[in-house]
Amino acid sequence: MSEEAPPVLATVRRGTVVEARIRGHVAVVDASGTVLASAGSPQAETTLRSCVKPIQALPFLRLAAGRLEVGDAEIAIACASHQGEDEHVATVRSLLARAKVPEEALGCGPQLPVDAATARRLLASGGVPRPIHNNCSGKHAAMLATCSVMGWPLKGYVEPEHPCQQAVTAALQEMLGVDLDHAPRGIDGCGLTTYATPLSAIARGFAAGTADPAFQRAQDAMAAHPFLVAGTGRFDTALLEAAGDRVTAKIGGAAVWAAVVRPGGPGIAIKLEAGGAEAIPVVAIAVLQRLGVLDAELSDRLRPFATLPVRNWAGLKVGDIRAERIELVSIESSPR
Amino acid sequence: MSEEAPPVLATVRRGTVVEARIRGHVAVVDASGTVLASAGSPQAETTLRSCVKPIQALPFLRLAAGRLEVGDAEIAIACASHQGEDEHVATVRSLLARAKVPEEALGCGPQLPVDAATARRLLASGGVPRPIHNNCSGKHAAMLATCSVMGWPLKGYVEPEHPCQQAVTAALQEMLGVDLDHAPRGIDGCGLTTYATPLSAIARGFAAGTADPAFQRAQDAMAAHPFLVAGTGRFDTALLEAAGDRVTAKIGGAAVWAAVVRPGGPGIAIKLEAGGAEAIPVVAIAVLQRLGVLDAELSDRLRPFATLPVRNWAGLKVGDIRAERIELVSIESSPR
Repeated sequence: MSEEAPPVLATVRRGTVVEARIRGHVAVVDASGTVLASAGSPQAETTLRSCVKPIQALPFLRLAAGRLEVGDAEIAIACASHQGEDEHVATVRSLLARAKVPEEALGCGPQLPVDAATARRLLASGGVPRPIHNNCSGKHAAMLATCSVMGWPLKGYVEPEHPCQQAVTAALQEMLGVDLDHAPRGIDGCGLTTYATPLSAIARGFAAGTADPAFQRAQDAMAAHPFLVAGTGRFDTALLEAAGDRVTAKIGGAAVWAAVVRPGGPGIAIKLEAGGAEAIPVVAIAVLQRLGVLDAELSDRLRPFATLPVRNWAGLKVGDIRAERIELVSIESSPR
Repeated sequence: MSEEAPPVLATVRRGTVVEARIRGHVAVVDASGTVLASAGSPQAETTLRSCVKPIQALPFLRLAAGRLEVGDAEIAIACASHQGEDEHVATVRSLLARAKVPEEALGCGPQLPVDAATARRLLASGGVPRPIHNNCSGKHAAMLATCSVMGWPLKGYVEPEHPCQQAVTAALQEMLGVDLDHAPRGIDGCGLTTYATPLSAIARGFAAGTADPAFQRAQDAMAAHPFLVAGTGRFDTALLEAAGDRVTAKIGGAAVWAAVVRPGGPGIAIKLEAGGAEAIPVVAIAVLQRLGVLDAELSDRLRPFATLPVRNWAGLKVGDIRAERIELVSIESSPR
């Protein structure tokens, strides 16, 4: 396969050995879609997955949030890939209750809580994974709440032709600036249609969002409730806690990550080629430092994510995941 | 980082989208160390990890197996990366009991059983992960049994200077043909030292092993007990069941996989560059087919591994992991 290889953005070290090399693409893009800087191919075709949840939440924010008088916590969970921890589940239930939608309507499929301690406690108490534990349950609850407010049927809300998904797709098209009617597509882990676009379009979508009041509301809610956006031990939560007033960020499946510098951009999108997301934090921090969004000297909250430990089963640190020197090519030096 | 990129060996597809590209190296090597065919760099430096367990078992087989009158099942578990299923745990306990070694001597660290159903059952019954559940517990039990027979102290058996590890390292040097005293190294997941060698040396080790009676005994035991080598749903188990008389195979951490065609080679080693192992089965099958070890028309046991399904949380197949066209460069066409 002659696909040109993107650069190595991170490595996994074990002792004195480079045990794995992780390649990827980076796009730094303004609200008009102009690529300001990049590594690899900013046009690499990438599934949107969960990194666009703050954009998928726009119909909820525009059509339902006001009528339902939802708070920041419920908006944050609508934008979340949460870990099924107690506070996550409680917030999803609160949103469903506010919209008078039964939990059984959730169409995201059952998933064991991503948080290992929560998963163990659930199983030890005789529980089973349910759709409410699914990392996407907040997004689905927001979609159902929107259906409830708009009088759309709850049944079939995950189908692309349902008015709910039509509204979500229109919001994605509006922000990303891509004709999704003709885009390659697949089914996401939670059953919704996910589209593929150039990586740069994801960054453009986040940058364009910063001019939209509904997206701004999502940004504020994510900054106000970092724990709800991801959870214990998670990078997006730490980044939003440390710098949510300066950057909004969201991970998605198959190692895609999007962010935007507040208030007006640029947008940033990262895709690790092989689909494993373990190195996203170290690459994202390196890129944010390169762009001057984060200082070279990180806060205590973020420092643990700049280089991630590799541990053996006894808990001993035996290696690390670290960023390599990432060359961001700017349009000044290399016009595309 | 200017590391030359190896070729894409497999892709992850979701709907009509290529969502991830998985690069890697392949080395096909004879017992003398001559590279017969390759993809990427057969000299890529690679940690040995668990794929060399059948070689790490040689001191056990040579020094202890006869004295302890162990059976094929106990030899297979000594070579295994098992899933902590009931039969795995029982076989490790049987080996420990035969050598009169207490379970508490296991130095591999606690690991939740890799088999999800077993892990859930353990937690639901109030259990906790123990060293016996660690995927490496069979190897550690065999090392402890060797210590017991040889009168070596059990304490410290995981340390590189202990006579047990000295014997294991000597066996690795003998088979791989590499001076490990000066090799890069790190600590494996189970606490033992793991070395880095060229990928070709791993394949050479398996090929050279086929002339050694102790390695042959390991091959026979793995072919006789495929379930013990890995477990439910695992590729190595399926391959050994379908073709254990024709090929011996073993996976290791960070996406390294080694095999040897029976009876006399060649040896085969595969390393996926980014360290994620999900595509090992599809790449291994493609390579074995290319070498004529497996037919183009696969058996019912192996067919499910030739292309692996990607499923969403509701269980629906939404994509697949498939091998790309793998160009194996033979030394005839491209001398190295």
